[in-house]
Amino acid sequence: MIKTPYLLFLGDAPDQLAAKVAQGIKDWRPENAVGQFRMEGCKADLGLTDMTLEEAKAAGAKTLVVGVANRGGIISPAWKKVLVAALEEGFDLASGLHNLLREEADLVAVAEACGRELHDVRVPEVDYPIANGKKRTGKRVLAVGTDCSVGKMYTALALDEAMRRKGMKSTFRATGQTGILITGNGVPLDAVVADFMAGAVEWLTPDNDADHWDIIEGQGSLFHVSYSGVTLALIHGGQADALVLCHEPTRTHLRGLPEYSVPTLQQLRDMVLPLAQVANADVKIVGISVNTQHMGEAEAEAYLAAVEAEMGLPAVDPYRHSADRLADALAAL
Amino acid sequence: MIKTPYLLFLGDAPDQLAAKVAQGIKDWRPENAVGQFRMEGCKADLGLTDMTLEEAKAAGAKTLVVGVANRGGIISPAWKKVLVAALEEGFDLASGLHNLLREEADLVAVAEACGRELHDVRVPEVDYPIANGKKRTGKRVLAVGTDCSVGKMYTALALDEAMRRKGMKSTFRATGQTGILITGNGVPLDAVVADFMAGAVEWLTPDNDADHWDIIEGQGSLFHVSYSGVTLALIHGGQADALVLCHEPTRTHLRGLPEYSVPTLQQLRDMVLPLAQVANADVKIVGISVNTQHMGEAEAEAYLAAVEAEMGLPAVDPYRHSADRLADALAAL
Repeated sequence: MIKTPYLLFLGDAPDQLAAKVAQGIKDWRPENAVGQFRMEGCKADLGLTDMTLEEAKAAGAKTLVVGVANRGGIISPAWKKVLVAALEEGFDLASGLHNLLREEADLVAVAEACGRELHDVRVPEVDYPIANGKKRTGKRVLAVGTDCSVGKMYTALALDEAMRRKGMKSTFRATGQTGILITGNGVPLDAVVADFMAGAVEWLTPDNDADHWDIIEGQGSLFHVSYSGVTLALIHGGQADALVLCHEPTRTHLRGLPEYSVPTLQQLRDMVLPLAQVANADVKIVGISVNTQHMGEAEAEAYLAAVEAEMGLPAVDPYRHSADRLADALAAL
Repeated sequence: MIKTPYLLFLGDAPDQLAAKVAQGIKDWRPENAVGQFRMEGCKADLGLTDMTLEEAKAAGAKTLVVGVANRGGIISPAWKKVLVAALEEGFDLASGLHNLLREEADLVAVAEACGRELHDVRVPEVDYPIANGKKRTGKRVLAVGTDCSVGKMYTALALDEAMRRKGMKSTFRATGQTGILITGNGVPLDAVVADFMAGAVEWLTPDNDADHWDIIEGQGSLFHVSYSGVTLALIHGGQADALVLCHEPTRTHLRGLPEYSVPTLQQLRDMVLPLAQVANADVKIVGISVNTQHMGEAEAEAYLAAVEAEMGLPAVDPYRHSADRLADALAAL
């Protein structure tokens, strides 16, 4: 559990895209983003107040989040001075970089001396149990994709936002590093040891109110041979009551697998449903989320209408429109 | 890679079952078993020559394998004197216990001083790659089960034995601790980090001769929600050309999951085939392996005949008969 709110560290980000983790925090949990800290030469700007460490501290920030990635995921020597000063100022640090905070002896030493915490969200911090498959109270919805990186996290966050707006009870459950930094907690599922994957998902989505929805961030794809096992652990550990199918229609092959074609939404439906029924006989597919970022407005509308007719399910692009219709479908379950 | 041959350490095993790892080594790789080492009060006996450390060393043994498990998987203090003496005598140590050899400071110190290796086969010793899904040369067969612990390892070892006897080229590929100790190498898949599971299986079953078969030890079950992700990583990383379905017909529920019923062989077939086709469009189910240990001879024969008729595939119990008919089915592919 990372202490919120945050000061978002953008470092010397070469462009806006390099700060996409910070952008995600600001977009989805603006209440967690007290301000931004930019170094000389920083080309990213979230439109937040630029703050010194002292100003952010005074404004209530508790953790400095490394919201920027450089090539190689390295903690740059140029950043070190700021990170050390932040620890001394009383901030915890949180990062999703490959280069772990805990691998840096100077940061570890200063954190210990100051009694501060270093959160590397790529590394599990909990001893997860082995899944027991017992039926839990409350409801769960999981985003599953035809491929990796088709918008499953975005869909889940948009669904959470829409459900809260409609007065439904929901919690976004992060399973990847960006999601964990956005919300301050979650399970870095890709780093969990195989035997404990499904148990980690059970741990993440415990018993809850009967009318509460956990919105579980999906990972990988049943069709992506590199990560399909992680996907199935989410399906079975998540004990999903509802599934949202996610798709990016312009992709020519699976991400990183040039020999593998992208399955259709029908193929995904037919593959995922019997697997999900193993853990929950009543599971339903409630809607389709299409990432139409590479389509024009008219093309996107036509595509969504065609998918909706073919699949007999609401099909939306939550970025262009909202996830309201998916939330309505869950409410109607 | 554990150095063979072995001296099999049975310690103070309270009964024969406690020495089942050692029994597996002796049954399946007798050439790896130079002799046995039994302490006072040992109730297990593999029928191998009892040897002192000196005698085993002289007979060529290179590694002392802890072939016994006590309650809790602990390295008993009573064993320590022998394990230390073995290191001093020039043996490496290998163990699949929960209590790791490397967690014992005295063993670590002596091993270092003597230049010996400690192999904890529960712990991955390789940085596995992320799976790339590229088609590999050679053939692969995978055992998949309706449940955990239905005889997948036994089936794979029996198939390997039958294929070698018939002059076919085959290699048993261990994915669990017992299999790794039996053969001296493999991947402890349940302990691999999620993102690398499928890559570990690719690593384990690399390019090979066109007429060579890797016989991959299965793990878990697609229907067992605790471990199904591991199973799918095997299916996709293994890129199976052939599948053998494994079943134990007297089980009343899935192992450790009292609320989950055991699927039928038809349900397993219908679930596994489309998933396996993602990685290998030409995959075929070649036969059924039934664990009939809880049935009488006549009951077993009748059951196998019924399964064979229903499924249209050879159905054998490799323990009662042999895996010859499964090997023939692979040869005919």
